Amino acid sequence: MSRQSSRIGDSKKVNGELFTLTYGALVAQLIKDYENDEQVNKQLDRMGYNMGVRLIEDFLARFNIGRCSDFRETADIIAKHAFKTYLGLTPVISNWSPAGDEFSLMLETNPLTEFVELPPGHSNLNYSNLLCGVLRGALEMVQMDVDVRFVQDALKGDNVTEIRLKFIKKLEDAVPAGED
Amino acid sequence: MSRQSSRIGDSKKVNGELFTLTYGALVAQLIKDYENDEQVNKQLDRMGYNMGVRLIEDFLARFNIGRCSDFRETADIIAKHAFKTYLGLTPVISNWSPAGDEFSLMLETNPLTEFVELPPGHSNLNYSNLLCGVLRGALEMVQMDVDVRFVQDALKGDNVTEIRLKFIKKLEDAVPAGED
Repeated sequence: MSRQSSRIGDSKKVNGELFTLTYGALVAQLIKDYENDEQVNKQLDRMGYNMGVRLIEDFLARFNIGRCSDFRETADIIAKHAFKTYLGLTPVISNWSPAGDEFSLMLETNPLTEFVELPPGHSNLNYSNLLCGVLRGALEMVQMDVDVRFVQDALKGDNVTEIRLKFIKKLEDAVPAGED
Repeated sequence: MSRQSSRIGDSKKVNGELFTLTYGALVAQLIKDYENDEQVNKQLDRMGYNMGVRLIEDFLARFNIGRCSDFRETADIIAKHAFKTYLGLTPVISNWSPAGDEFSLMLETNPLTEFVELPPGHSNLNYSNLLCGVLRGALEMVQMDVDVRFVQDALKGDNVTEIRLKFIKKLEDAVPAGED
């Protein structure tokens, strides 16, 4: 689906349960379509990427955010502005690497998984992998190549949900606007 | 995806653009998966049905709504409570049939389609058909067999988006809890 123009400063909200069920329908469909969990994870990441490259435009306009001075500032903006705006929650930033190039977002709740149970036989499924793709896509649009992945997931019985972000490299200003 | 328990009185919201893009990813995936628009429409209706049978429980608890005395009261509750709660808008109720068994919901805006363009060659796609399924599923859970379908869609160039609801019959109290 393509988009005609960008939205700025809009703050429309929809009900969280409707979103959770819609996302669940998407994941269920991908489970039907693909042979294994790894392929579903990849597909969710790809879809998220395409969403991230669109959402970032709206996000930057909304908060009038300039270039981050370092990865710590990026972490702050992701946790306190991006997650807050789009999902209504603020993850805790933790587990910084000594070099300052890796951190984790700890989610106590996750609107994508509320009242969800993983179907049997899908222990490798990263149910919320869309979020990794969104972050990866959005960060790429601000010239940051970042590896984003789940390292813990409360849906799989972990105590907390942890998304790990590792800064790879700064990209040149001209980057492709999407991937299919 | 199954659900462990029901949510009552919760009012978490997520960003509308995130929802629009997630729904767009779902429709795009179905377009890939199915041969023609009619099959995609049917699939969206089926997914919506399964969502409706879940959402109704939360909805009834939230507003403490009892049995409607007639279809006009049902129309009012759908427009003023259900659409308002889940999508943040209130459609206009119009075009009542003389017998009072049919009406239309006129949507001036539709969060599912904001900034969406139908891909070429999909003139029979009812992009937002999920909504028909949600209404059908939710109404079935309150013992009403209702036919729900799009008759106009702004996405296809119509001036307004119109969903038509036609009361078919009252169901017995014991109804199946889902369809797959």
